[in-house]
Amino acid sequence: MDYRFYIIYVCLNSYNQRLSCSANCEDRVQNKEYLVENLKNIVGDSYVIHEPEDLIVFEQDASVDRSIPLAVVFPASTEEVSDVVSFAYENEIPIVARGAGTGLSGGAIADNGGFVIALTRMTDIIGIDIDNKLATVEPGVVNIDLSNKALKHGLYFAPDPSSQKTCSIGGNVAENSGGPHCLAYGVTTNHVLGMEVVLADGSVRWFGNQLREHQGYDLRGIMVGSEGTLGIVTKIVVRLLNIPESTKTLLVVFKELSDASAAVSAIIGAGIVPAAIEMMDQLCIEAAEAAVHAGYPDGAGAVLLVEVDGFEESVNEESQEIENICRAHSMMDIKIATDYLDRERLWTGRKSVLGALGRLAPNYYLMDGTIPRTKLMDVLNEINKISEKYHLPIANLLHAGDGNLHPAVLFNERKDGETVRALKAGGEILKLCVESGGVLSGEHGIGLEKQEYMPLMFTDDDMQAMQQLMPAFGTKGLLNPGKIFPKGEPLQYLKQSTAIGNTGTGAYI
Amino acid sequence: MDYRFYIIYVCLNSYNQRLSCSANCEDRVQNKEYLVENLKNIVGDSYVIHEPEDLIVFEQDASVDRSIPLAVVFPASTEEVSDVVSFAYENEIPIVARGAGTGLSGGAIADNGGFVIALTRMTDIIGIDIDNKLATVEPGVVNIDLSNKALKHGLYFAPDPSSQKTCSIGGNVAENSGGPHCLAYGVTTNHVLGMEVVLADGSVRWFGNQLREHQGYDLRGIMVGSEGTLGIVTKIVVRLLNIPESTKTLLVVFKELSDASAAVSAIIGAGIVPAAIEMMDQLCIEAAEAAVHAGYPDGAGAVLLVEVDGFEESVNEESQEIENICRAHSMMDIKIATDYLDRERLWTGRKSVLGALGRLAPNYYLMDGTIPRTKLMDVLNEINKISEKYHLPIANLLHAGDGNLHPAVLFNERKDGETVRALKAGGEILKLCVESGGVLSGEHGIGLEKQEYMPLMFTDDDMQAMQQLMPAFGTKGLLNPGKIFPKGEPLQYLKQSTAIGNTGTGAYI
Repeated sequence: MDYRFYIIYVCLNSYNQRLSCSANCEDRVQNKEYLVENLKNIVGDSYVIHEPEDLIVFEQDASVDRSIPLAVVFPASTEEVSDVVSFAYENEIPIVARGAGTGLSGGAIADNGGFVIALTRMTDIIGIDIDNKLATVEPGVVNIDLSNKALKHGLYFAPDPSSQKTCSIGGNVAENSGGPHCLAYGVTTNHVLGMEVVLADGSVRWFGNQLREHQGYDLRGIMVGSEGTLGIVTKIVVRLLNIPESTKTLLVVFKELSDASAAVSAIIGAGIVPAAIEMMDQLCIEAAEAAVHAGYPDGAGAVLLVEVDGFEESVNEESQEIENICRAHSMMDIKIATDYLDRERLWTGRKSVLGALGRLAPNYYLMDGTIPRTKLMDVLNEINKISEKYHLPIANLLHAGDGNLHPAVLFNERKDGETVRALKAGGEILKLCVESGGVLSGEHGIGLEKQEYMPLMFTDDDMQAMQQLMPAFGTKGLLNPGKIFPKGEPLQYLKQSTAIGNTGTGAYI
Repeated sequence: MDYRFYIIYVCLNSYNQRLSCSANCEDRVQNKEYLVENLKNIVGDSYVIHEPEDLIVFEQDASVDRSIPLAVVFPASTEEVSDVVSFAYENEIPIVARGAGTGLSGGAIADNGGFVIALTRMTDIIGIDIDNKLATVEPGVVNIDLSNKALKHGLYFAPDPSSQKTCSIGGNVAENSGGPHCLAYGVTTNHVLGMEVVLADGSVRWFGNQLREHQGYDLRGIMVGSEGTLGIVTKIVVRLLNIPESTKTLLVVFKELSDASAAVSAIIGAGIVPAAIEMMDQLCIEAAEAAVHAGYPDGAGAVLLVEVDGFEESVNEESQEIENICRAHSMMDIKIATDYLDRERLWTGRKSVLGALGRLAPNYYLMDGTIPRTKLMDVLNEINKISEKYHLPIANLLHAGDGNLHPAVLFNERKDGETVRALKAGGEILKLCVESGGVLSGEHGIGLEKQEYMPLMFTDDDMQAMQQLMPAFGTKGLLNPGKIFPKGEPLQYLKQSTAIGNTGTGAYI
């Protein structure tokens, strides 16, 4: 869908049926000048975007959805975020916090209009505590920049989404992002200790602390992965890990996907926990080969990239064992690298795949499901059937070690009906993941893209239990409204209008 | 305080000023026969304890507080838990879930009377999924039993509280328990993937799943460490880890505590993450020596127990490096063990300390604070000053690697004023921990013991943000009331009587 030509007021007044807005408020919403003027007073004239032609840049993230916000505002501090949020709260304007806009599930799309709060000016690495291996950062800090800065102290930030050269740590927190190395080290929530949060009414809270233990309720944990629907994170305390003494990368080529998949099971089954096990299927290989001449041999049906790290002796022992397992599973070829540049070279093919898919089709619909890793081959076979059913090629890119799949449904939006077929194929893949005992999202969140599929995983009661948290955070439904939870008919309890705590000024939806 | 001689109705009608109870309900509460009869109908006659002489067993856990419940009920299934909870909800009777009663913060004490739901009959290890390294257990499963059962598959459950031979996994979840090996592997919340929960109104929900990724809000995370105030966990899915190829235990004796402390800093600073680093001071050593003849040399001022695990080569390399560091910090003696029985022998002294302290004084008040590990020696010096100020010996037992202190204030409750002095000394230790950038509890929860100290760590606003979660879970204030949060004057918002969702039938406090 392309909302590009809708006028912006339609976004607020018609789309957003879930936002109850007083007559007085509607006047103000329509008085865009008043709103923009106030935003400018808070952050300065240069840091508010409001002309339609400028706003188009912010109508999308890395997902397929689009919607134009009323204005985009760029605060530079917690105080400015608080003032903007508080102003929006008074005027009942929806707010969408935005990091680098690399999310794949539409989390940063203002599909109810309102203000986008872009956190790209809040990029301070406030401090690195070397002794206690912590860093305190602002949400706009680019993921890789923290690791680069910590490097000289022998430390790094473990969560490494494929977009780590552009995505921001605030966005990682919002989506509970993963990455290739989360196999060994866990996802973002395992690395976030505490955070400063601006709540919907503009008040500033501190959740968590500087240690791994929490006292009272783990509000920090609720915030991670809440996709901007409960508050806006303005400072983050993260753990840093020691850079391993030694790291070895193995690129193993197989003729058959089934052999590669069996090798993954055998590696895990042998009790080895590599830092990463990435897998690409034939279509990905072809695309990468065409784009960056990665040097994969002819007839390669699957590639595994396995990384092991730790003390040199154990790295050598583990990599030898992995090599033996791969040999026993009819591998065609193996390349092993230990120094940084050689390792980067082996990763090139993997990291270029998403861009390279453009050589196979003008569009792709990238999915993000997670399954128990023992079901890997079964699920890949089923995805192949879905591909045949919808006559669309599907390229499979996998964080294979932890069963996180990224099937990319390739299509051409200009060909009649292909977009719809791609979306349907994607839906079937998500269903397949859940039916296999998996989940809807490994690392990109639910956002707009997957909300209709939430009932596959959760009963109405379970979703109700989640949504009952919103009034506890006093959101009044203004924070990233319409995300995560299915639209359609609101759940019974949502019809209740009494809210508690900060929501005393009105119904929260 | 000893509530032993208070009559049980006082607990409900007078103590619990926070529970609003209709006239009709008060009748029922006083009609104990009616209540007991109904409980017996749910779980069977043999599984309800209600005679005062029988109830005394359940008036305390491992903390210093005491209170007699109205009745103790032993359900055998989720359905029975649900029925009991639902019955209590209708009659507005407070509920305290109880595992093995080994908690040190009074979490299992029914200080508002009501029903104790003892989960000691729910001890099924429902299943172990070897391929995906998961187990599903009932809450009453004893911690060590799970590891023992998983052993033959080469797996184990990592969180290992010192009470692991008696404490239950449900209790570990409620308190987010730690243990010596949490240094490398994290606390309970890092090992719990999903859970079945009975909410206050008796409804059954599922939070989390069988994977490390969560979708929507992380309700699983909120439950871990919520000390039974939000729901009762009836099934738990936990991660199991591979038993390491090799494990080596080093017992290192120092003349000076400061040397041992500096050695800990140096080990961590060298980038080594041992599985455990435990520390005992001179008083602990004396007690252990007297009790189990652990074989510590004369003049020992501190003992470190360091355990490293992993691949054999890296274990050898790490343990050699640790030995070198300890030598450089003037160690007196070192013993190293690799096989299971020898390692157990080295752990004997450490594991016997708490019992052994009885040789030094009739009572101890065991604290559980956590500090940034870089402040270890400063804090120990300050604790020494507190000991002198209150004329009470303080024995220090530490999970030193992650800065989790267990100072035990030794006293004799029969000596006039000693109990009060011990409590005051404990309070100063907690303050000291927080002022040093630490937290009130490393692994035993807040419970009754530390709630008055919560304001040291949290502003009223921060605590309010936490307490606003209760209505979201529809607790009506009936689940383990009076725990975690300070009593005294209720916060402003608590005076609001409107609740949402499940709490529709009345005020939740």
